[in-house]
Amino acid sequence: MHIPFDQLKAEFKRVLLKLNFTHERADFCAQIFAENSRDGVYTHGLNRFPAFVQHIKNGLINIDAQPTLINNLGAIEQWDGNLAPGILNASFCMDRAITLAEQNGIGCVAIKNTNHWMHGGTYGWQAADAGFIGICITNSIANMVPWGGSTNALGNNPLIIALPRADGHVVLDMAISQYSKGKVLQYQSFEDELPFVGGYDGDGNLTKDPNAIIESKRLLPIGLWKGSALSMVLDMLVSALSLGKTVKQITDQGNESSASQVFIAIKPFNA
Amino acid sequence: MHIPFDQLKAEFKRVLLKLNFTHERADFCAQIFAENSRDGVYTHGLNRFPAFVQHIKNGLINIDAQPTLINNLGAIEQWDGNLAPGILNASFCMDRAITLAEQNGIGCVAIKNTNHWMHGGTYGWQAADAGFIGICITNSIANMVPWGGSTNALGNNPLIIALPRADGHVVLDMAISQYSKGKVLQYQSFEDELPFVGGYDGDGNLTKDPNAIIESKRLLPIGLWKGSALSMVLDMLVSALSLGKTVKQITDQGNESSASQVFIAIKPFNA
Repeated sequence: MHIPFDQLKAEFKRVLLKLNFTHERADFCAQIFAENSRDGVYTHGLNRFPAFVQHIKNGLINIDAQPTLINNLGAIEQWDGNLAPGILNASFCMDRAITLAEQNGIGCVAIKNTNHWMHGGTYGWQAADAGFIGICITNSIANMVPWGGSTNALGNNPLIIALPRADGHVVLDMAISQYSKGKVLQYQSFEDELPFVGGYDGDGNLTKDPNAIIESKRLLPIGLWKGSALSMVLDMLVSALSLGKTVKQITDQGNESSASQVFIAIKPFNA
Repeated sequence: MHIPFDQLKAEFKRVLLKLNFTHERADFCAQIFAENSRDGVYTHGLNRFPAFVQHIKNGLINIDAQPTLINNLGAIEQWDGNLAPGILNASFCMDRAITLAEQNGIGCVAIKNTNHWMHGGTYGWQAADAGFIGICITNSIANMVPWGGSTNALGNNPLIIALPRADGHVVLDMAISQYSKGKVLQYQSFEDELPFVGGYDGDGNLTKDPNAIIESKRLLPIGLWKGSALSMVLDMLVSALSLGKTVKQITDQGNESSASQVFIAIKPFNA
């Protein structure tokens, strides 16, 4: 079944307006959700939209909130996301990072109390479209077992690195798990096995079975001990820079809200 | 066999002085090589010293060269390393990044035409000791096969992320290969198998045999396709920011010299 882009976006927007979004904010969020589906990132497009709506209904997302500035040290700023929709906060932060990079060559914005940014690549493209190198990092709820451990303590903390190119940008957008949670859910919905081991079953054995991984909630880090360490350090980096919640604090509250994120924009010397 | 730190350092210094290093530069390099051995990073301490000496004798390292400033955009600078010893250039660059971060909250220094920095963690510790978050990236000669490929085209491009802590810094220092080349050489010298697959043999099969991996020169990226992509993007990042050589250009010249590196220092808001 194929649905035209405009029809998909209009339907997202209709739902968001019914949830009392302003026209401008509904239009922006609907555009991003529709683009994510259009670009093949189904896991953070239509497939994710119901969870986004549920978070709004549960009060985990404040649809009218705006980020507020806490600290500015020149080329780096700290913001409070006030639990606004993650898409809006992330887009705002990368815009600020680009402005700081225009003034200083490099700009860094850290934000606490924000929400899931959906497709992280969106903000990498945003930087690259403006002619800047972009780096974005977020933490998440615990969904990986530290190497040698048996209980979830690490987030898969996606990392985005984007490079502007006249002939088409290069954008890396990867979770630190071998498969993102959304990708495992996608294999599960198609009743397919993963091509490679992607997590642990309830007995702690590595498995390709998406059902077992979704049930155990234990994704496998890339590079075994290496991804385990990288995930921990990325969490420390975003929570230290934003003075926001760590993976443990997000996990302890029982739902994936009030994440910590960092956005860096760098002006290339040959631009 | 145990050798006292001072004796090891003095011996390194004696050799470097004989190679016509100044006393100051010989002392600094000897200190770092001795510390790398003392801290258990044998692969970049005593074990690596003969290769360092050989590079000097081959003219790949210019022992008296100083880095020169090419561009300053405020909080970001581009330098030419002029093929000086990698240890001296890297330490200088992180010092500059810290100075820029003191002034702007964040500082970024990109350097081209530099040499192997030995133990990358050194420059992460340097940032953390000064109270700054440190991020360092280098490219390398091609030693990994891109996912799905059959010939070496990727460097293992180490990544360092350091976080200052009153109770002891946290420093991640990892190559993007499952095992660094130095670590595979170490297993080879002990005639041990790797605990997990770490590269390909000559027939393209994954193997735990260090001899086969050293012979094929094909390390396995962490996370299979993910490390493959991360390595490529890190190479693009350091070469684009420094306007220096890429992994391909380093590889084509036939020896691991004139690498591209990036050093970032960030001032924590709660410092």
